[in-house]
Amino acid sequence: MLDRIPNKEDIVRAAELIKQYINRTPVLTSATFNKRYHSEIYFKCENFQKVGAFKSRGAVHAVVNISEPDRKNGVCTHSSGNHAQALARAAGLFGIPAYIVMPENSPRVKIEAVRNYGGIITFCKPNLEARETTLKKVQEQTGAIEVHPYDNYDIIAGQATAAMELLEEVSDLELVLCPVGGGGLLAGTALAVHSFSLNKAKVIACEPDGADDAFRSFHKGEIVPSISPHTIADGLLTSLGKRNFPIIQEYVQDIVTVSDESIIEAMRLIYERMKIVIEPSSAVPFATVTTRKIDISGKKTGIILSGGNVDLKQLPF
Amino acid sequence: MLDRIPNKEDIVRAAELIKQYINRTPVLTSATFNKRYHSEIYFKCENFQKVGAFKSRGAVHAVVNISEPDRKNGVCTHSSGNHAQALARAAGLFGIPAYIVMPENSPRVKIEAVRNYGGIITFCKPNLEARETTLKKVQEQTGAIEVHPYDNYDIIAGQATAAMELLEEVSDLELVLCPVGGGGLLAGTALAVHSFSLNKAKVIACEPDGADDAFRSFHKGEIVPSISPHTIADGLLTSLGKRNFPIIQEYVQDIVTVSDESIIEAMRLIYERMKIVIEPSSAVPFATVTTRKIDISGKKTGIILSGGNVDLKQLPF
Repeated sequence: MLDRIPNKEDIVRAAELIKQYINRTPVLTSATFNKRYHSEIYFKCENFQKVGAFKSRGAVHAVVNISEPDRKNGVCTHSSGNHAQALARAAGLFGIPAYIVMPENSPRVKIEAVRNYGGIITFCKPNLEARETTLKKVQEQTGAIEVHPYDNYDIIAGQATAAMELLEEVSDLELVLCPVGGGGLLAGTALAVHSFSLNKAKVIACEPDGADDAFRSFHKGEIVPSISPHTIADGLLTSLGKRNFPIIQEYVQDIVTVSDESIIEAMRLIYERMKIVIEPSSAVPFATVTTRKIDISGKKTGIILSGGNVDLKQLPF
Repeated sequence: MLDRIPNKEDIVRAAELIKQYINRTPVLTSATFNKRYHSEIYFKCENFQKVGAFKSRGAVHAVVNISEPDRKNGVCTHSSGNHAQALARAAGLFGIPAYIVMPENSPRVKIEAVRNYGGIITFCKPNLEARETTLKKVQEQTGAIEVHPYDNYDIIAGQATAAMELLEEVSDLELVLCPVGGGGLLAGTALAVHSFSLNKAKVIACEPDGADDAFRSFHKGEIVPSISPHTIADGLLTSLGKRNFPIIQEYVQDIVTVSDESIIEAMRLIYERMKIVIEPSSAVPFATVTTRKIDISGKKTGIILSGGNVDLKQLPF
């Protein structure tokens, strides 16, 4: 298990370790979008990742990096969705149980998916305190090792491999846009860009107005917890992790927020023009482009599409 | 312009001619589906094609193959959607006008798309007679050359390039499933499989129960017109073309029909598991698999996903 901020070699090693268990996801472009925004936009499609989200990268890496004797009683976590599925699947790959604490109001599609991957679910009230208390209990009963969804260096190194792959294909990016919730993907992306970008690309974090704790933390210089966040981007509700924040402070150039309305519109545009299914959280970075909150004209821009696990009966457009 | 059934060389030449104007679309697989149906299914994703449908292939090929003096007054057609967009775009590539006759009840998204590609629309009543009369008038007024959506050998040769590409990537397919409406894609696919399949793959046409004229024509041995068809698969309402039918009789092994309910379920499964946007017509072949109307177990199977132009506000699931 990594006990410090992952460096370039850690990310390369993570990519090697997880390679056989995850998809190398495609990088897609849209002629329409490139024309409209006078740019070249490269979408790294983690919606095509195993379990439908980048979370598979970190989860597999975390499980691989726990020694065999340590992981024999399984792993556990609390998660509102994608990390839960990813950890359940990762545990299954290594023949160990995954105990998942989920808020009782999680989307149906995510609950079913966790079960399909063999995860053992304990439901709790939808607040952080209930999640943590319930998880403690589960841990005491089972002896499972906790794999935090984002506040974990192995997770961060695993998530970093998405941007690493993107830069392998498009080495001269100038901007990389990434959504931020707890900061696992963002910290990983920032470290990967720092390690592998030829052009020293800028990393811009993108966040919903209704869950702008990262924006406030970034500008205040200390972690401001996410209290009663409200946004369609249900993957971005959590507060920044304490391991994630210093990485973000050092390697992220700016954080930009967008309204739910613009997130929904960006999501619809991606479905309509790119013909791919993404979840609302994935649309947050592109919403900063469509609203011209970030001016990408003339700049080669990478966008991490984080996942595609959405309740298709509840599409917001 | 081709005046006979396209052969292997015609298809290769079509591919060369259209190459720079179309996308080489990806071939996707799903581990979940392969496990569930005990097969390897290769989805040729024409939803990622220019204008969101395979129709771009035929339209570009048809326009390229009309001599410059002949095409100076433009091209025209009647089409309920994807062919209209494709022809408008193809004409635009060569700087000539495209006159499109469209039924007044065409989906909003398709009307707007035709306009965005520069097509000049004349609306008509939603029946074949009105389409043909209106098109005649447009032709008389403009001197444009008609490019029929499917009953045209250049169109058939263009559509054939999708299956040709699929076989270039997966040469040992044993089954190829293809939707059938007017028979442009199906005739092209059947010719491509006949020309390029190492294993002499079988071609199975897939059709909605509510528009089963191809099924009836195939079994009666003569074209049975599609009268008052009713199906969610709005790209498959038309009757078989007279140039298409003999090709289908010779090179297609069987035609299987499925209910709208199963088409909707197959469509939802593809969105949910493959994270891609397809239109209902595209889901028809996979519906023959999910309903076990075709047994693909143990057989390497190709499926042509024909397009992704769907009104996202009206998804049927």
